[in-house]
Amino acid sequence: MASNVNETNDVTLTKPIRCIVKLGGAAITCKNELEKINEENLEIVSSQLRQTMISSENVVSLDWSKRPGTSDISCNVDSFGDQLSFDANKFIVVHGAGSFGHFQASKSGVHKGGMDQPLVKAGFVATRISVTTLNLEIVRALAREGIPSIGMSPFSCGWSTSGRNIASADLPAVAKAIESGFIPVLHGDAVFDDIQGCTILSGDVIIRHLAEHLKPEYVVFLTDVFGVYDRPPSEPYAVLLKEIAVSEDGSWSVIKPTLQDMNKQVEITVAAHDTTGGMVTKISEAAMIAKLGIDVYIVKAATSHSLRVLSGEVRGNVPDDWLGTVIRRSSR
Amino acid sequence: MASNVNETNDVTLTKPIRCIVKLGGAAITCKNELEKINEENLEIVSSQLRQTMISSENVVSLDWSKRPGTSDISCNVDSFGDQLSFDANKFIVVHGAGSFGHFQASKSGVHKGGMDQPLVKAGFVATRISVTTLNLEIVRALAREGIPSIGMSPFSCGWSTSGRNIASADLPAVAKAIESGFIPVLHGDAVFDDIQGCTILSGDVIIRHLAEHLKPEYVVFLTDVFGVYDRPPSEPYAVLLKEIAVSEDGSWSVIKPTLQDMNKQVEITVAAHDTTGGMVTKISEAAMIAKLGIDVYIVKAATSHSLRVLSGEVRGNVPDDWLGTVIRRSSR
Repeated sequence: MASNVNETNDVTLTKPIRCIVKLGGAAITCKNELEKINEENLEIVSSQLRQTMISSENVVSLDWSKRPGTSDISCNVDSFGDQLSFDANKFIVVHGAGSFGHFQASKSGVHKGGMDQPLVKAGFVATRISVTTLNLEIVRALAREGIPSIGMSPFSCGWSTSGRNIASADLPAVAKAIESGFIPVLHGDAVFDDIQGCTILSGDVIIRHLAEHLKPEYVVFLTDVFGVYDRPPSEPYAVLLKEIAVSEDGSWSVIKPTLQDMNKQVEITVAAHDTTGGMVTKISEAAMIAKLGIDVYIVKAATSHSLRVLSGEVRGNVPDDWLGTVIRRSSR
Repeated sequence: MASNVNETNDVTLTKPIRCIVKLGGAAITCKNELEKINEENLEIVSSQLRQTMISSENVVSLDWSKRPGTSDISCNVDSFGDQLSFDANKFIVVHGAGSFGHFQASKSGVHKGGMDQPLVKAGFVATRISVTTLNLEIVRALAREGIPSIGMSPFSCGWSTSGRNIASADLPAVAKAIESGFIPVLHGDAVFDDIQGCTILSGDVIIRHLAEHLKPEYVVFLTDVFGVYDRPPSEPYAVLLKEIAVSEDGSWSVIKPTLQDMNKQVEITVAAHDTTGGMVTKISEAAMIAKLGIDVYIVKAATSHSLRVLSGEVRGNVPDDWLGTVIRRSSR
């Protein structure tokens, strides 16, 4: 897929990126209620990201805007002495759409293209309004924790596709934002497609592209389940797969746990309304990242397990009491 | 100024751009109340833009998101038959910040640069949150009128400066959005600056740059006064200057009305909190656009005068009953 990419710009970073984090749509929005943020989860996720990104204990909000229903702006300029540092570890945040955008995209068929149809063109506008609304709220939630977050909407940042594969992306802009000490916040978005006119570019595909070109130390997917299971996690006897190895040819094998019946293909659930693919896309994108030699962790958001993996504690040997899935390149 | 610009991309348009419209911050926000949109004005402005952009009488909203305080999404998919066309005249919308962004920018000094200072870096984040909040609301107001509006935040779209002059801008992305039938909506924004680290790029400077490279037929500034006056319009005996000619060397002369005391320099008011300059910037940017041979109209937003000028009625000879200021290249 990457061979199609028409990128003339080399990206150089003075220090490698530590981590690319996916905030899964299901983890930060209420999947069954249209355009509703899971405020509680988002707050915990933002706090965990602050703890792992910023050394300072001091939390000073960088969101100086009015909150809905209030008339005050809180901005304590005195807090920003020279002592205060919010030098952040180099992270990139990418979020999904959850209950934002999917309704608009699936109603209009934006993912299938055809911009000459009024409904598709309308859906393109409506989808972008919905996903940028969510992006702004996530940027604000991170900023309230003192994280210097900067919204970088893929459509605006030059991301486009060709036959639904990535054709262009302004990676130097992402690198420049990181070098300047900001945390870029990207998201699944409606974009132009050279062949079919337009499509939906999923957050998972964005992450794979960023990982391939910016080579982070590790990638974390924060989701609403503990990891990848051998069958839909709602079913009885579903087993959490703790370690998966990906071989050269792209096939996977389960390293942990070692069960007899693990030869059968791992079953996965795809929610019918998920226009960009559910676990199927996630696992196959994760496998492609792992093949690059970058460890991928899939973990439940806003838990002690997500905090441990974000902070890097789980790297190397996975502790027995850690719940989540690691996807790694096969060492054979 | 433009000679510094490092732009490798040629921009080609199949049809010229009809008009670049500035929605002045003072016209669409409540200047004296922090982060408050002037909803009434914004609604009228959006409706006037629809009337001048789209031939169809049928207004079908392209904003399918929930409005604050409501739980419903209104999306009438049946309206989008093949008959429906919202083929728009080629317009670009650029808006100012008004009571959004200025507080955050002036508190922190983002316009003066110095990103190594925590306060400036914090202000950069806070300013972008505030101006992108306004941008989203304007995109939504236009979309509710059936205008296929697409937010294109300058920071994300590759705009940067060098010593506060424009150093780069992804104009091909703007052109591509227009060619695809969308109305790009840009705004004054916090951007990176090669020399001082960061600055505020004003909507007026963006308009001049767009006008220079995309050559619209005319440019309209929608503001909160009827046009340019010979002294602050709040003063008694202030006279509206209806036609100003700009000569090669950049000096202006008032063509209409012909007053005896017009030799003295036109007085202007600059609100103290306006970090990007008030009327001074506007007139000097307008003069630079007019020097390119592109007529510039400064007119009060949400009036019959703004509707007439947007529709192109005022082009050529300015009717006596039209209130506003035209700035043109001197014919001498």
